[in-house]
Amino acid sequence: MQTEKKGGFTLPGESGLEKLTLELAEKWGADVIRDSDGTQLSDEILQSGYGIYSTICIIRDHNEWAKQHPECLQQSFLSTPPQTACESTLKIAVMDAYFNEQFRVNDSEKTMKYWQVWDRTANCLVDSADWSYDPATQTVTIEKASPFHNYTVSFLAYRIWEEISMYNHVTNNWQKEHLMPVDPRRPEAQEYMYQWLKDWCETHPHTTVVRFTSMFYNFVWMWGSSEKNRYLFSDWGSYDFTVSEQALEDFEKEYGYALTAEDFINKGDLHVTHMPADAHKKDYMEFTQKFVSSYGARLVKLVQSYGKKAYVFYDDSWVGVEPYGKHFPEFGFDGMIKCVFSGYEVRLCADVPTETHELRLHPYLFPVGLGGAPTFMEGGDPTRDAKQYWNSVRRALLRAKIDRIGLGGYLHLVQDFPDFVEYIAKIADEFRTIRSLHEHGEVYALPLRVAVLHSWGSLRPWTLSGHFHETYMHDLIHINEALSGLPVDVRFINFEDAKADGLKGVDVVINAGRAGTAWSGGDAWADPALVAALTQWVYEGGVFLGVGEPSAIAGYGEFFRMAHVLGIDRDTGARVCHGRWSYDLQTVEGLLPANVAVKGIDNLMLTDGNAMVLAEENGLPTITAHTFGKGMGLYMSSFQVNNQNTRMLLNLMLWAKKLPLQQDFLTNNPETECAYYPIDRRLIVINNSDQTQETTVTAGGKEISVTLEAYDTAILQL
Amino acid sequence: MQTEKKGGFTLPGESGLEKLTLELAEKWGADVIRDSDGTQLSDEILQSGYGIYSTICIIRDHNEWAKQHPECLQQSFLSTPPQTACESTLKIAVMDAYFNEQFRVNDSEKTMKYWQVWDRTANCLVDSADWSYDPATQTVTIEKASPFHNYTVSFLAYRIWEEISMYNHVTNNWQKEHLMPVDPRRPEAQEYMYQWLKDWCETHPHTTVVRFTSMFYNFVWMWGSSEKNRYLFSDWGSYDFTVSEQALEDFEKEYGYALTAEDFINKGDLHVTHMPADAHKKDYMEFTQKFVSSYGARLVKLVQSYGKKAYVFYDDSWVGVEPYGKHFPEFGFDGMIKCVFSGYEVRLCADVPTETHELRLHPYLFPVGLGGAPTFMEGGDPTRDAKQYWNSVRRALLRAKIDRIGLGGYLHLVQDFPDFVEYIAKIADEFRTIRSLHEHGEVYALPLRVAVLHSWGSLRPWTLSGHFHETYMHDLIHINEALSGLPVDVRFINFEDAKADGLKGVDVVINAGRAGTAWSGGDAWADPALVAALTQWVYEGGVFLGVGEPSAIAGYGEFFRMAHVLGIDRDTGARVCHGRWSYDLQTVEGLLPANVAVKGIDNLMLTDGNAMVLAEENGLPTITAHTFGKGMGLYMSSFQVNNQNTRMLLNLMLWAKKLPLQQDFLTNNPETECAYYPIDRRLIVINNSDQTQETTVTAGGKEISVTLEAYDTAILQL
Repeated sequence: MQTEKKGGFTLPGESGLEKLTLELAEKWGADVIRDSDGTQLSDEILQSGYGIYSTICIIRDHNEWAKQHPECLQQSFLSTPPQTACESTLKIAVMDAYFNEQFRVNDSEKTMKYWQVWDRTANCLVDSADWSYDPATQTVTIEKASPFHNYTVSFLAYRIWEEISMYNHVTNNWQKEHLMPVDPRRPEAQEYMYQWLKDWCETHPHTTVVRFTSMFYNFVWMWGSSEKNRYLFSDWGSYDFTVSEQALEDFEKEYGYALTAEDFINKGDLHVTHMPADAHKKDYMEFTQKFVSSYGARLVKLVQSYGKKAYVFYDDSWVGVEPYGKHFPEFGFDGMIKCVFSGYEVRLCADVPTETHELRLHPYLFPVGLGGAPTFMEGGDPTRDAKQYWNSVRRALLRAKIDRIGLGGYLHLVQDFPDFVEYIAKIADEFRTIRSLHEHGEVYALPLRVAVLHSWGSLRPWTLSGHFHETYMHDLIHINEALSGLPVDVRFINFEDAKADGLKGVDVVINAGRAGTAWSGGDAWADPALVAALTQWVYEGGVFLGVGEPSAIAGYGEFFRMAHVLGIDRDTGARVCHGRWSYDLQTVEGLLPANVAVKGIDNLMLTDGNAMVLAEENGLPTITAHTFGKGMGLYMSSFQVNNQNTRMLLNLMLWAKKLPLQQDFLTNNPETECAYYPIDRRLIVINNSDQTQETTVTAGGKEISVTLEAYDTAILQL
Repeated sequence: MQTEKKGGFTLPGESGLEKLTLELAEKWGADVIRDSDGTQLSDEILQSGYGIYSTICIIRDHNEWAKQHPECLQQSFLSTPPQTACESTLKIAVMDAYFNEQFRVNDSEKTMKYWQVWDRTANCLVDSADWSYDPATQTVTIEKASPFHNYTVSFLAYRIWEEISMYNHVTNNWQKEHLMPVDPRRPEAQEYMYQWLKDWCETHPHTTVVRFTSMFYNFVWMWGSSEKNRYLFSDWGSYDFTVSEQALEDFEKEYGYALTAEDFINKGDLHVTHMPADAHKKDYMEFTQKFVSSYGARLVKLVQSYGKKAYVFYDDSWVGVEPYGKHFPEFGFDGMIKCVFSGYEVRLCADVPTETHELRLHPYLFPVGLGGAPTFMEGGDPTRDAKQYWNSVRRALLRAKIDRIGLGGYLHLVQDFPDFVEYIAKIADEFRTIRSLHEHGEVYALPLRVAVLHSWGSLRPWTLSGHFHETYMHDLIHINEALSGLPVDVRFINFEDAKADGLKGVDVVINAGRAGTAWSGGDAWADPALVAALTQWVYEGGVFLGVGEPSAIAGYGEFFRMAHVLGIDRDTGARVCHGRWSYDLQTVEGLLPANVAVKGIDNLMLTDGNAMVLAEENGLPTITAHTFGKGMGLYMSSFQVNNQNTRMLLNLMLWAKKLPLQQDFLTNNPETECAYYPIDRRLIVINNSDQTQETTVTAGGKEISVTLEAYDTAILQL
């Protein structure tokens, strides 16, 4: 098998640097050249014979049209913070808390019917006869307020500054005009954008792929008026930016009932992805996904009618594009491009039903990285960054086939970093080798089929609602990240699946999260059928692995509804006078790697005293195992992804399924991992750490030992 | 003013040690000699001219009668642990989890109607036609169980071993007969015990005071069958040991509705004092208190008819005796004796509506102390223990008048500890001095009236449900202990009081506890009238001090219903995507003593960014202050009582009420405190630490400096 030196690589081109662009295209084996936000491609590049990606964000960059159609801007419901009525009249200035460069009150006559005033203390809606609105001061006045109750006003606001544009402006002190987001729900906007795209296709004959960034609705990012709390709400999966009068009217026609402001404001919680959806929200999500894919499909077909391919960049404006949703195939996209910081994002990309799957690697070719640390400038070390990012995604690439990788940004920045240029060449080759192994046949996996169980199930596999650094506080993203590179089968199921046939063929079910969240499940656990189905499945041999507050819901004797399976529960206060089982810490040879540690949580209590306590902190269990019938309940108080804990997770699952901990094609050093491709008889061993590691892999009774530099890869022929 | 050398002291006498008894009576200024559990007084002592206390526990020590009347033993509802139905028939052995020397199943024919079988997974009662009970095996068989649901059986059980007797047996390996507790609800038992007490009075002419230990129902202490979880449930305020068929029948007659097993079992939570009571439980408590005081009054009157006084020892069997309950005066007790480990227990005792208030000090004259550490034996240091105990109670004694102190146990044990004998002589004199100061007039207090707000209010002031070491995990007991020695007025109010006129004349309201508990308040906070009343009161100048999860309840936008006043809230998961206010830590000169620290809790978030953050841990606030109208919301994430934090609590309250931190009759060293008695112009300065301390008190512009040895007291004439 020869290493391919070309293909599957997308290079960001830069006008005026044609020589560098073409040299690096050669060096890195690129077959495609792309533009980026803020760069353009010259004719020389466009005509160089490479494939050409052009980036389009369809809902912005139409300011002239938007100004002529101010009612066609995107909107959102906003709520004022609670304000106390200290006398019988209460005045609430609705925009006080919000960034007035992002939002503009929509107080048109026909819109006021959507506004609501709530007495949040009594938890009741105020009759619209009892309040009035003054457009001049943008103030609601409540007459006869209940003394010392708190009130809020829910109102519609236009979004007058598209959030990615806003962020780039504010971060880079741009002085350009603020780009406005157009509401694709409006027929006139649809026709305008369709025509615009048609014109664009006509005038861009060299473009081979239109890269949509992404579709229409940005992840929700509400900015506040105070610099001390600028980001009032940031949720990468929320639907709060998709609403408008048009959407509300269309919804009512289609579903036969009307949504209200409170369906969005939700006591101030908003449409947060991390909480289970109620029926209205589920309907509205489905309604929006159907619309996004339907209008999106028109645009995709238009692009394809010009002989170009249509890819979607799954970030930024992804809301309604859920690539595992039932409407996604209706788009007809030719490819999916995912920007990746983490292994789970690789897996998220890999199985999307499109022909092509591409990763946009990090670092982005910008002077500074996320969080403002230097990258391609004095003080930066882009090669180190690239190694760390590659290290994060590589283990997942070993498990699932990806078709392409690429970079983005300003190519001129790499000129001063020859190490970086060499390193990218190395990983481009490494990527192409891994890809060809996948193309030849399946990677070897252990007989462990894992189902992650949460409210969203297969609609939202792998990700929670964004990147790792946005969701690090949730145990589940750590679990998903660990799973993304383990040699096991992984699927995502929801609670309805678990009651139907979703547990068939599954060896381990993982439920991980805080009580009440979409990840733990909240009210879904009130359903006895769910509890009974899982109980039976464990009794017959399944392994239920709970993390944090699995299956937790208030109102029952146990807080964890699966406490009888787990052998452990958490006292929410009612059982403070109940005794606690004493226990002896138990050790299972080889089960927990040496440096394993999971953070404890308080008030844990063993239920029947039969759980094995495998680890503890401050006198409370952190890892337990409880035999139940032929199966087992495993519990971890939390999970933090790192090399040791990742191996621990694998070991616990193997052990609970009564499989040997020492297996062919497992390394003996948790800082390293490997993947075996039987067709090609290739073994790839990777060092996931920043230190040199020695490691041994057993393969059919033969021991193979390798020494690997920090973050390095060995590709061995067996 | 001369120091009194005699009086107000109760000495435990010991038969055969008459000389020692009388010597120590002289040395310690005793005026009363008592017996103890396991000791007797000889005629020589009885006739020595001292007052004589005799200890009686009326419901035990009647084994012969109890055996003849086995249906007259005390009872309790028990519940089996949840058991999973893995096939359609499920057998549950009801006593498996319980200590069979404590409980005996009551499966008499007429009692079975009280038994219940619950499907805890579906949360529904199983029809009695669908289960059967086999007395031979003490097993319930459920036919047609729902597969993989969990079931429990609630049943009545006799208690065949009185718990204090049981504990003493087990701890000391006694081999005596097990004492059985008699059910005072049964008319025949009442008549028997009345007659027994009459006989006792006839045969104990030298007894001047009958010391009831206490009335009828021991605090709830359910023992389990496994030594790895011996104490299944321990609640010093629970009513679970007061039930019987007679009680249930009487209740139904009086209240017009029947209680069921589930009113007691409560999903397995039982009648835990730390959770708010529902309406049934409130009725049942009232019903029981009325009964206990009514039958108790008969016994008290009988004792008094013999010219003896009747005191109640408020411990062990205190259930239904709540001394601040409305029925307590009906007993007609002459005195209350409280065993004390802590200052709050002194305050609890001091205001009980009886003529005499006595403290039983620690250490108890036993070879080992609580927890098994040596006291009066090799390795023990009873003088050090006595100093520490005295230190704990002394600061409260300075604030409220107590009439008597005393010791209990085996007097012979002190013979080898002459230091101890001297130290007790010293504190006996100290006590008498403090008592006389109180008798002359009020101790000086700051103009701060503090109301502790919780579900029980004035029914259960100062204590939660037992001693400090049983309730240390609750912030409120730390608060109460701190308050017990502070120069402020303290009252306890419930949520109904707060809505009525309970906030009148109050400067500071404290609400401290975990969400859902009786101390935080749970569902009481759903009431908008409560929120509005407190809000108005703060707006007009009050200080609301929340600790932990004050005013917390799920289902509203805010988790803390007083978040608008506190300026801080806790995210239960729904606001994980909401922004967090940045803040700068602020310092107020002199407000927080140098070594102050309160433990942080996670997920705290400022609400409007206006709260001052006075302390933090791991980047989250631990102490905040938020101006609201003319008043203030103060918040502490937790509270641990110690000398520094106690002063901090006082300082925060003073500062929030805009009172100067430096005042007359406050020490400048938080390790010390003082109390001033204006009528006698006496200043008592105490060192609450185990180190020598220098401290200065300002009095009318004059500075008084004192150096105090560890735990020492200075009594100064101004």
